[in-house]
Amino acid sequence: MTMEIAVDPTGNVLTLKQGDDCMRFHAIWLRDNAQDAETRSPANGQRLIALRDIPRETRIASANIGEAGVELRFEPEDKTVVFNTGWLRAHAYDRSFQQSRGWVADDVECWDSSISDNVPTGTLPELESGGDALKSWLDGATRYGFAKVEGGPTEEGALFRVVDLFGYVRETNYGRLFEVRTEVNPTNLAYTGLGLQAHTDNPYRDPAPTIQVLYCLESTAEGGENMVVDGFACARRLQQENPEHFDVLANYCARFEYAGEDGVCLTSRRPLIELSPDGELIAIRFNNRSLATVTDIPFDKMDLWYAAYRRLGEIIDDPSMEVTFRLNPGEAFIVDNTRVLHARKAYSGTGKRWLQGCYADKDGLRSTRDAMCRKPAEAAE
Amino acid sequence: MTMEIAVDPTGNVLTLKQGDDCMRFHAIWLRDNAQDAETRSPANGQRLIALRDIPRETRIASANIGEAGVELRFEPEDKTVVFNTGWLRAHAYDRSFQQSRGWVADDVECWDSSISDNVPTGTLPELESGGDALKSWLDGATRYGFAKVEGGPTEEGALFRVVDLFGYVRETNYGRLFEVRTEVNPTNLAYTGLGLQAHTDNPYRDPAPTIQVLYCLESTAEGGENMVVDGFACARRLQQENPEHFDVLANYCARFEYAGEDGVCLTSRRPLIELSPDGELIAIRFNNRSLATVTDIPFDKMDLWYAAYRRLGEIIDDPSMEVTFRLNPGEAFIVDNTRVLHARKAYSGTGKRWLQGCYADKDGLRSTRDAMCRKPAEAAE
Repeated sequence: MTMEIAVDPTGNVLTLKQGDDCMRFHAIWLRDNAQDAETRSPANGQRLIALRDIPRETRIASANIGEAGVELRFEPEDKTVVFNTGWLRAHAYDRSFQQSRGWVADDVECWDSSISDNVPTGTLPELESGGDALKSWLDGATRYGFAKVEGGPTEEGALFRVVDLFGYVRETNYGRLFEVRTEVNPTNLAYTGLGLQAHTDNPYRDPAPTIQVLYCLESTAEGGENMVVDGFACARRLQQENPEHFDVLANYCARFEYAGEDGVCLTSRRPLIELSPDGELIAIRFNNRSLATVTDIPFDKMDLWYAAYRRLGEIIDDPSMEVTFRLNPGEAFIVDNTRVLHARKAYSGTGKRWLQGCYADKDGLRSTRDAMCRKPAEAAE
Repeated sequence: MTMEIAVDPTGNVLTLKQGDDCMRFHAIWLRDNAQDAETRSPANGQRLIALRDIPRETRIASANIGEAGVELRFEPEDKTVVFNTGWLRAHAYDRSFQQSRGWVADDVECWDSSISDNVPTGTLPELESGGDALKSWLDGATRYGFAKVEGGPTEEGALFRVVDLFGYVRETNYGRLFEVRTEVNPTNLAYTGLGLQAHTDNPYRDPAPTIQVLYCLESTAEGGENMVVDGFACARRLQQENPEHFDVLANYCARFEYAGEDGVCLTSRRPLIELSPDGELIAIRFNNRSLATVTDIPFDKMDLWYAAYRRLGEIIDDPSMEVTFRLNPGEAFIVDNTRVLHARKAYSGTGKRWLQGCYADKDGLRSTRDAMCRKPAEAAE
């Protein structure tokens, strides 16, 4: 089908029309997104100019469709740039923006206990060899916000091999790694045999670590099973049940605090449900142990906030939302700590349970996945 | 002045009145914030119970003021808890919430070039000895979002001693540290002699690193001065000039990308001006090199968005907003990368300019400062 091309009389708007399909682009957006070698470094893709280098009065002086794509000449620079029509289509912004509050990205799939038999899992040696096994594991970890690793060694520090698959350790006051086992004078309740309600780690940190790795070295104690819960699924269920509950948790900030060690006083002020300005669900913070005194909610909303917080907790505790598993030595799991809550059952003093944990960041995970996905596509162009 | 105490007939609301001063608290909030040893661990301050352990129908059955403070008995638990009245006053939420969009925290002070002679500065040995010198430097770094260090050694890796003052290195694909000097095949334009417009680092990372350290090892090249600009001050000036400009940058997400190395494809979708849900200014992202194609702004707002982005850039480039300095060997500066932009002037091929840089996180900085501030206060209680 032929594509029609038109520029409005001011030179400010380009219109491409193909049948019923119509896309408009602004001159300044087009110029700023030119992909030529003077605008973008061919070597590393970074933009070589700033907006201040593009005249404010930029307009499209002429527009043609040729073999190479859409050829535009910009004035007053007298600069000609060719845009690939597929690229323009992929980046079109002349569309409806009607996503409802709490939407999630396309590569995110909300889940409940029914995925228990389909947890993204790989063996450590297979994942370390890269290729499709790694790509599919990274893809699963991004989609579900958690994934398991099996077949690793029973060796201290082996959890770093899991991090090496996609990123870098985020060191904190807990160290590069922390030992999760019963301690005599625990600085944190995680280092006891107590059961822990599903939670996200370190909401008192800002930025909170976005990935947690827990790696099992010993597991002969009774109990101590791990559970994971999709915080996004819980927040959306809360929204379906009662939009006011969702809104009050998203519209006001809670506070979190941890000051359980000398020299440490970590505090943050963030909502339990975090949305981007255009309503994307981007993070959940939920941790009964470190929720501090909440003082940023007006008096006439506080009862509603507590009712919503209680209901969110009930949904999180609902067994139909959780995936339960028992880690054996040499097994690990990772969670997207901005989304997936983790819990553990209480365990007894008989036998031993020893995990090592560490933090990392999910931008590395997405980056590694996207670099693996993108390469063949670009090579094919 | 005597304090009057009252509980409403439902037992849901406690009222404390002292002269014209009136504070109301909800029963559930009070019970959740009890500071007794069954509710909070005396050892590490963490909450030992979850909201699910507190009955939904919790009410105040009796309330008295005594020597120790406000004594409340909660039903149906039949639990008595004493609240310090000073603590209640400090955490009162029955107040007006009328902060305007773009407010900043009390310990943040916006600045322009007029603070050039009052930059928080310490010598490395003095800061390493801790105490007041460190406390005041950390306080300045929090208040202004940047600070300088002098008197350090001209030794590779010395920048880690700056990080050790308050936190932990955030390792990334650029390494634990990165060399900022001219390279033959730069993966990043930072590794050239080009001038760089004021920017925040790595907005394509999510979470972006919240602290950057730049440490000078050699500086004989002509040019290469550093500039810093308070992004919060720039955003607020934009808002004063034109609230619509501020709003469009806060209400819609930009996109950022870096894929300049094999195996790396970092992308993010975040606004240039980030606000908390209750309007606190919490982050600025500004980087012409890594701004990707922006597609999340509706067609009828795109021109306004570009006009606002241009104006924000002009304010950032205004010399009256910037502090300029030249780092000598053994000198360093840190910036809060969520707030303060940094720039450098172009430098020539004659002579050498060699900085080492690394990332860290500001929660550690605030935590170290707060732990130093809090200790004497608590000991005095």
